[in-house]
Amino acid sequence: MSAIIELINTGSELMLGFVLNTHQQCLCRTLADAGYTTARQTAVPDTAADIQQTVREALGRADFVIVTGGLGPTSDDMTRDLIAELLGRKLHTDAETLRRLEQFFAERGRPMPPLTSVQAQVPDGALVLTNHHGTAPGLAIEISPYPFRSGGKKTWLAMLPGPPRELRPMFTEQVLPLLRKELPLEGVFVCRTIRTTGMGESIIEEKIAAGLQPLITAGLELGYCAHYGEVDVRLVARGPGAQKLAAEAEALVRERLGSHVFGVQDDQLNAVVVRLLTERKETLALAESCTGGYVANSVTDVPGASAVFLGGMVTYSNEAKQRLLGVRPETLAEHGAVSEATAREMAEGARARLGADYAIAITGIAGPGGGSPAKPVGTVFIALATARHTFVLNPVNRYDRPTFKHITCQQALELLRRNLVNAQQGD
Amino acid sequence: MSAIIELINTGSELMLGFVLNTHQQCLCRTLADAGYTTARQTAVPDTAADIQQTVREALGRADFVIVTGGLGPTSDDMTRDLIAELLGRKLHTDAETLRRLEQFFAERGRPMPPLTSVQAQVPDGALVLTNHHGTAPGLAIEISPYPFRSGGKKTWLAMLPGPPRELRPMFTEQVLPLLRKELPLEGVFVCRTIRTTGMGESIIEEKIAAGLQPLITAGLELGYCAHYGEVDVRLVARGPGAQKLAAEAEALVRERLGSHVFGVQDDQLNAVVVRLLTERKETLALAESCTGGYVANSVTDVPGASAVFLGGMVTYSNEAKQRLLGVRPETLAEHGAVSEATAREMAEGARARLGADYAIAITGIAGPGGGSPAKPVGTVFIALATARHTFVLNPVNRYDRPTFKHITCQQALELLRRNLVNAQQGD
Repeated sequence: MSAIIELINTGSELMLGFVLNTHQQCLCRTLADAGYTTARQTAVPDTAADIQQTVREALGRADFVIVTGGLGPTSDDMTRDLIAELLGRKLHTDAETLRRLEQFFAERGRPMPPLTSVQAQVPDGALVLTNHHGTAPGLAIEISPYPFRSGGKKTWLAMLPGPPRELRPMFTEQVLPLLRKELPLEGVFVCRTIRTTGMGESIIEEKIAAGLQPLITAGLELGYCAHYGEVDVRLVARGPGAQKLAAEAEALVRERLGSHVFGVQDDQLNAVVVRLLTERKETLALAESCTGGYVANSVTDVPGASAVFLGGMVTYSNEAKQRLLGVRPETLAEHGAVSEATAREMAEGARARLGADYAIAITGIAGPGGGSPAKPVGTVFIALATARHTFVLNPVNRYDRPTFKHITCQQALELLRRNLVNAQQGD
Repeated sequence: MSAIIELINTGSELMLGFVLNTHQQCLCRTLADAGYTTARQTAVPDTAADIQQTVREALGRADFVIVTGGLGPTSDDMTRDLIAELLGRKLHTDAETLRRLEQFFAERGRPMPPLTSVQAQVPDGALVLTNHHGTAPGLAIEISPYPFRSGGKKTWLAMLPGPPRELRPMFTEQVLPLLRKELPLEGVFVCRTIRTTGMGESIIEEKIAAGLQPLITAGLELGYCAHYGEVDVRLVARGPGAQKLAAEAEALVRERLGSHVFGVQDDQLNAVVVRLLTERKETLALAESCTGGYVANSVTDVPGASAVFLGGMVTYSNEAKQRLLGVRPETLAEHGAVSEATAREMAEGARARLGADYAIAITGIAGPGGGSPAKPVGTVFIALATARHTFVLNPVNRYDRPTFKHITCQQALELLRRNLVNAQQGD
């Protein structure tokens, strides 16, 4: 019987739709990759009755309850007090936490605001989870037995601060080890995510499902997760033969999907491309029209991109295409700005002007306006200029504007990645 | 007594952390702007017991329950059947829905897959919510009285398809009007969001809270919502004098915060800047180093940006700064790439080379590497070149890499916006 885990997110800003609940995705994903599944997630406003009621219900169902938010110093941070009251625990000042709070402000040369010290209040019997990135510590309480739970089973309750950069490391470094110790998985758990691009989910399924069937019969769990332009194949195996089962499954998936596989686990296409270029000591230039800087922004999201990315031009106007990239006026007049010929000249111009090994150029019609019968909204030309050749792709990406940019960017990065991988294999 | 609304999101992909729950933010925000608040949101996996249990609990508490997901044609789309079973309603084929499904595929010249027709199954007594953007219709059921609810009160249950582009219009066009008809707000409701930038939440509070106190006493609800680099002031008023109360509050906020106010409701800084430039028939060029295309991408996210945005250069390397922007080697040697002098030459170079009315240039240290004692990680120079002057800002933005890019972009757009607004006032 696997552990029942529930997540409760407190915050009126969630209920008003002011913010996205990024905690849910982050914590659920981290738990899933560690072999645990979240049975239920609940979000409630910062009101006493709602918080206590929801926590009471969850403690009655779950082995491990995680509550986020409401541990700060202001008047709407009430989680600590409400949960102590619910559990009938007194609060005391934790000397070590108070010392850390004083040190936090001393190091920054700021006086400690009077309300801050409330964060050193700890319910009796609670473990303090150190906050290495902010002031409010987390708390973990073993409740044994929980009076509202049938069978007198014990439950753990972990409280985490709301800011993501405080919550995330606290969860992986302190809560997950606690969970593993208190509610260990039964036997080995292996989760392998194979990241692919350039093939739809149904085609992938066609290529691998039959071949994986004997392994599925032997206990392999197979799942797909489609993002825009990417499909993850998720392989899960449990028990004594898990490592071997997962390795066999991965080998089969890699063999069947070939170079559509660009990475594993959390690998991102932009990071993979930067890594390949770094390994080869080669450089990249970009010339973007319809993606408007999306690709440059994606590449420069990767720390260390400056070693391989020389620069890019965002050439929205025809004049910019001529001035910055040397596209010929005749080409624009004859073929139009959205054409294979223009994409080719943009890529070759960017490569030459920046002295890069590779240049990617993108020109197309993002929409909503600007389409024509011959070149409908979504028409794109993606060119890759290398020392030897210039390749041009011509997909039609009919999506809303942000999705159009993202999918086109992924196609461009994938064109470059394949070229780098094939060149490597040809070395 | 205001209506109690609950939201239930079904989907194992949520519980595995594969996707963000964007439905929650979108639906909660739309409800809040219409005067309704969501009392609780719950996410559960696609399993029969979880879905039925969660819906049963919510129906026992709420006046209006919204369930998302699980209405499609595949084997894990079970919401329709499970809820019909829970409510003891038979399913019948809805002729009009079946006709629409057949038409959907006929218009696309594709045969209708056999499983599709399950989407025309409707629980007895349910309203069908037409899906104008996909196949699975939504459903709304009045349950009167709900047997598990105390006092025999009636409850509404709405079921919506999972894909956002199907769910969102169905919610605003069909569910919200139903909610307004069945559970009308008591009296007038006015919600006004004033969007500001360049001032922290506590400073804004200092400037407006005391002045708004008499209006708060008269019933105004005041809230703040801080995003990175922006703070929303949310003014809510209800009842007979609501319009006047909100108008007086808005006037006071605008007077006290002056040009820090860049918009209302859903206005975005990038769209405001594009609108101002469009009105003035003026053009923009960009030169980005550390933001790596983020600003260009933000500007080109605005439909119609091509009318005012000529182009941008992403100049990561010193060589690119020289070749593309004409930054002098002496300037780079003497002051470094991250300096006021370089930012100034980048902006002036971009403006001249693209023939734009305005150019923004950004150079800085995004981190995590690259800092020094004199120029720590987070150091940024933002230059705005106009026909008359070049202005340079020098903030220190110590954040993680994605936040650094976003905040720096907002500061740059705000520098331009203020210049445009001031120029307008000086006309």
